Amino acid sequence: MSGYKEVLLAQRPETSRDIGSHLFEIRKNEEISAQQGQIAVQVTHLSLDPAMLGWMMPDETSYIPPVALNSRMRGLGIGTVIDSKNEAFQEGDTVMGMFGWTELAISDGQGVTKLSSDINREMALSIFALPGLTATQGFFNVGKPKQGETIVVTGAAGSVGSIVGQLAKAEGLRVIGVVGSEEKANWIVDQLGFDGAVNYKSDTAAKRLEELTPDGVDIFFENTGGALQQHVIDQMNAHGRVVVCGMIADYQSETPRPGPNWIPVIKKRLTIQGFTMPDHFDQTEQLLEKLTPYVLGGKIQYRAHVLKGLENAVSGLSLLFTGENRGKLMVEL
Amino acid sequence: MSGYKEVLLAQRPETSRDIGSHLFEIRKNEEISAQQGQIAVQVTHLSLDPAMLGWMMPDETSYIPPVALNSRMRGLGIGTVIDSKNEAFQEGDTVMGMFGWTELAISDGQGVTKLSSDINREMALSIFALPGLTATQGFFNVGKPKQGETIVVTGAAGSVGSIVGQLAKAEGLRVIGVVGSEEKANWIVDQLGFDGAVNYKSDTAAKRLEELTPDGVDIFFENTGGALQQHVIDQMNAHGRVVVCGMIADYQSETPRPGPNWIPVIKKRLTIQGFTMPDHFDQTEQLLEKLTPYVLGGKIQYRAHVLKGLENAVSGLSLLFTGENRGKLMVEL
Repeated sequence: MSGYKEVLLAQRPETSRDIGSHLFEIRKNEEISAQQGQIAVQVTHLSLDPAMLGWMMPDETSYIPPVALNSRMRGLGIGTVIDSKNEAFQEGDTVMGMFGWTELAISDGQGVTKLSSDINREMALSIFALPGLTATQGFFNVGKPKQGETIVVTGAAGSVGSIVGQLAKAEGLRVIGVVGSEEKANWIVDQLGFDGAVNYKSDTAAKRLEELTPDGVDIFFENTGGALQQHVIDQMNAHGRVVVCGMIADYQSETPRPGPNWIPVIKKRLTIQGFTMPDHFDQTEQLLEKLTPYVLGGKIQYRAHVLKGLENAVSGLSLLFTGENRGKLMVEL
Repeated sequence: MSGYKEVLLAQRPETSRDIGSHLFEIRKNEEISAQQGQIAVQVTHLSLDPAMLGWMMPDETSYIPPVALNSRMRGLGIGTVIDSKNEAFQEGDTVMGMFGWTELAISDGQGVTKLSSDINREMALSIFALPGLTATQGFFNVGKPKQGETIVVTGAAGSVGSIVGQLAKAEGLRVIGVVGSEEKANWIVDQLGFDGAVNYKSDTAAKRLEELTPDGVDIFFENTGGALQQHVIDQMNAHGRVVVCGMIADYQSETPRPGPNWIPVIKKRLTIQGFTMPDHFDQTEQLLEKLTPYVLGGKIQYRAHVLKGLENAVSGLSLLFTGENRGKLMVEL
């Protein structure tokens, strides 16, 4: 490799709708090499995630500090070790870590995970990285599912929602997914085995939701926010659990729409619990132990939406917020 | 006693604002006596509680079936056993139970608790009945308090809120109460030892809340609902707990005002949990064991707002919803 490209955050979004290539600068750097204790990683796949909006916009309540201006954009990636001066790694190793938006990363190995060399890297980013960990933590540890219960998952064709729904099917729940297109509705029912789908853009979405949940809703796995939220709450059973994982429909709005009134929270004794995966990274091993058998048993399908090259990372991030991505969004370098 | 009066629910409220004496009928009955296995109780004190609204209005999501039309209004009371054909009770015993709105009750003893004969009955209804159980369950088991944390309690001069705040002070928390008048603000600070009070009717309530919680809010004990809710959520710290115990400001509104958007629920990893005491009646003994030492240690003060006679029960219930009651509302017969 003679020199490499990386992407810097050149300016912060003025508003949360202001996501595009003008925020970034692609810089060509001279080749650098690993020093004692370090590894050099040629990055091949970068994950694009909704959390990136929070990393770009300063927000004192965020759970992780923002990316500094004119420094490399943060991101999870997979790559190949091309040089190692760290005894824990060897040239040729397949590794996953927060390498950022770059073709070449130098790392001291902290927080870098070795993967099996023959792993499908698109699958690894789609299932074994943030989406799978998040889905597993949220579904099992926050949702506390029981066989025979009904779960409603919003963003059901998304990277987290699609895994939650499939885990729930495997655990014997009735699974209804909320999506934003007929194509996604067909995919989650026909390919992933969901029991039903609601297109939230349809005029009859609330009625459809009601028809599909004749025994009410025990778990509401919320990835999106949006107007259907109130209707799901209306359908919930006593002692229902609401797992608040994402609010992507509202992240970009200047004035997030209000949430449901809390009277049903009392009457139905609901628990509404927010979580973010960084709080639980110390449980990664246990979560992967829980998730892996489902994957090996063929219970978890995925689809990857692959953009090519760093140039497309900077313009493609907005797909997450328009809902135009089909499957886990990532960049192949 | 020659004959006795009881109150029947004569019609259901047309709307939740329609609470008044026209809903009830006071009937004079012939004296009745205890049969084998029964006790006759002369009721001396009746508790008036917000939950009564839910008992009068049919609502399929309610946790307890409504009172049937033309039958005795449901309610918790304290009285004296005047005749016993049940070996568990003796004439002269002081007893508490769901006797309903009546001067004389016949009971098989199920769900009837014997109290110490020298107990102050106003105190018993104010602390050892629903308010104290609810406060103890909600504060300790849902709120999960830690010494040094900050709690905000709404309805802080009310029967539950005043106990929650005093338990929290005794446990070493910083305690801020939200009330609806200056008189109540003074009472909770000067008499109950709260660290501060916010009058939600003041124009500067949100600013005052912020000033009084410089280290943020760890526990939000919500008894009322209302516009300040959003501001408390804004002040909450990461991993904060919201105990949703009452929404009295919204029980009477035709269109309950919306709640907070859930973005902070994720960012701050909040848990919002609703509970109602009937789910936990099997833990009454443990809850009283927890509460009693605080009462014996002089940590829990109360005030009772006592109406006289059944005639005042039917007209006085609405005081709970206008916030005009001062202390635990009850009727002395």
